[in-house]
Amino acid sequence: MSANSVLLDFSLDPTRISDEVSRKDIVKQCKEHLEKYLPGLKITYDMLTDDGYLCMLTAPGAIVTTIRFFNQGLITINIEYYRAECEAPKVSFEQTRELENNLVQKLKLNHGQSLPTLQRGPLTKYFPTADERVIEYDIDKVLYDKRSDFQKIQIVHSKSLGNMLVLDELQNIAEADLIYTETLMRRGVENYKDKEICILGGGDGALLYELLKESPKHVLMLEIDELVMQACNKYMNSICGDVLERRKAENYEIIVGDCMVYLSKYIKEKRKFDYVFGDLTDIPISDTPTGEIWEFIRSILESSFQVLKPGGKFMTHGNGVSCPESLQMYEEQLAKLSPKVSFTKCSAFVPSFMEEWVFYQVQREMDGAVNV
Amino acid sequence: MSANSVLLDFSLDPTRISDEVSRKDIVKQCKEHLEKYLPGLKITYDMLTDDGYLCMLTAPGAIVTTIRFFNQGLITINIEYYRAECEAPKVSFEQTRELENNLVQKLKLNHGQSLPTLQRGPLTKYFPTADERVIEYDIDKVLYDKRSDFQKIQIVHSKSLGNMLVLDELQNIAEADLIYTETLMRRGVENYKDKEICILGGGDGALLYELLKESPKHVLMLEIDELVMQACNKYMNSICGDVLERRKAENYEIIVGDCMVYLSKYIKEKRKFDYVFGDLTDIPISDTPTGEIWEFIRSILESSFQVLKPGGKFMTHGNGVSCPESLQMYEEQLAKLSPKVSFTKCSAFVPSFMEEWVFYQVQREMDGAVNV
Repeated sequence: MSANSVLLDFSLDPTRISDEVSRKDIVKQCKEHLEKYLPGLKITYDMLTDDGYLCMLTAPGAIVTTIRFFNQGLITINIEYYRAECEAPKVSFEQTRELENNLVQKLKLNHGQSLPTLQRGPLTKYFPTADERVIEYDIDKVLYDKRSDFQKIQIVHSKSLGNMLVLDELQNIAEADLIYTETLMRRGVENYKDKEICILGGGDGALLYELLKESPKHVLMLEIDELVMQACNKYMNSICGDVLERRKAENYEIIVGDCMVYLSKYIKEKRKFDYVFGDLTDIPISDTPTGEIWEFIRSILESSFQVLKPGGKFMTHGNGVSCPESLQMYEEQLAKLSPKVSFTKCSAFVPSFMEEWVFYQVQREMDGAVNV
Repeated sequence: MSANSVLLDFSLDPTRISDEVSRKDIVKQCKEHLEKYLPGLKITYDMLTDDGYLCMLTAPGAIVTTIRFFNQGLITINIEYYRAECEAPKVSFEQTRELENNLVQKLKLNHGQSLPTLQRGPLTKYFPTADERVIEYDIDKVLYDKRSDFQKIQIVHSKSLGNMLVLDELQNIAEADLIYTETLMRRGVENYKDKEICILGGGDGALLYELLKESPKHVLMLEIDELVMQACNKYMNSICGDVLERRKAENYEIIVGDCMVYLSKYIKEKRKFDYVFGDLTDIPISDTPTGEIWEFIRSILESSFQVLKPGGKFMTHGNGVSCPESLQMYEEQLAKLSPKVSFTKCSAFVPSFMEEWVFYQVQREMDGAVNV
């Protein structure tokens, strides 16, 4: 079940809606065209707004339509109605486009736009890109939906991406995202044979699973959220194998706990790793590198370098290429670290993000990394 | 400039909104939470609908909000206001998410969803996938916008895809789409050296440009729309080079005209090709293979095979993998052809389509193609 929203918008010369007479004429014509698809349409209410005019129309079948005029030269039309599971749409996308084209031509408007019908209901289908554009996913099922002490955890099924982990309503990783893990670990570029590795986060198990294929000496994974691992172990086996089920073997161990606590412990014990992976929260999209999350990112970086062997690398995901400001801010944080670090970066189109994502490889400068 | 639409929706137990008292209480609480972001919010109008209740609220700054209750157990909230070019949003996506989470928790709702703010205005940003899901593109400029005798032609700029050709409001090809052309022509699989090739359509010039790199004997391109070629020649040179500027050379020729007319002429002249490319309209998404477009697809196929040498191939694009019914219908049309044909198919993720697309290679059966 869903509430369907059909949205159209039009641009026109502002002078054409500045007086009541011509505006009323446009409303009348809009109504006539709408009636072809919504028989029995009637104006129920109208009002002047500070920047124009709005009228509400209703049609049998509880179809509510608003037509709003903005004095700046815009008209929006919103049609909203309830649609049961097996019911056909009351207005198809083809009809929406037809309506849009008819109105543009008959009313000689400058520009028209119509969106595919939005489906609003218990199945979350819309997720944002890093730069907050809307993407509708082909999600047809919710497989898991629980709130842990740390976050809201969902696993949904997408027809094209397979099962997908969603944390706090953000797409995290899907079965189609091997490229994400391979780019994060730079498969084929980095050599993990006989290396000691620490993963901060990584609760979906994909990074651990792929790293173990590279014959490392030992991988230690520090994940705070037991429920994420249970969910992924149940629904994401194609990306994590059985690593979340077994939790421990000769060459790896998963510890459920706060990675900051364990990093402090390892610093005291002088335990060292060849690689530390930051597979935690994304770099926040904010104007200034302040606030809790940036503090967290800085402490993670500082602590990680304290447990890295000379020449060791900190590997992490950055953000979408669509957010250059956010990436730049992260790089500025790297520049402030002491001792000095250098970094390389690479990017890949991540299917479940629907965009190109940037990954960082950070090394102490004295260890000879080249700043690219 | 744009009209911004902030959309939220919630699911809840239908019994909670079946009586007026509890519904009024939910409205009151919704209003209180909304007021944090929209100070001065007032109920302006309300009404009962056939399937529930709707109220309209306004706030200073001409912010109009509707809250609609559906007896089936849904609530939709739509906030709409005008936003000038350099103005900050009145409600950020972060605030929308915060509002959603607060309402879900405080009102103990079953599910909440919020979309990134939709921007409605003279810049078309929303295009559909083959299965009519909405994708918001990072479009920041319209470079070309004209209507030819055949279609509406636009070239827009996308931050991630480069310039993009849009025909009749559908994304057609972008500068980032080399993979589209390479998959259509099966670069590295088919051998075009010294071959005679005919392109039906292909007005963006990309296929011609890439084929010429493979040392064919001659490529003939039949494109009906002069304006498409002018637009692409001006704004899409990275994908078409100078082929649309020169129009003719020793190894190629572009004829502006109806490909059906020319195919008939070649059939009479017994002119033959090694390859015919169908780079015309997409396979329609419809329930039955009837209507003008399917007639057109069938005649194109029949005529193409009449101008193909023995062993010659008809190469074309199909549709998104998200539309299996449409692909199946096309394959059923192929099965009806006489003499019998066989086909192979392959697919690739096309950046500007934001989905996996299927391409066909069709051959007369007696010529020894294997049906995959």
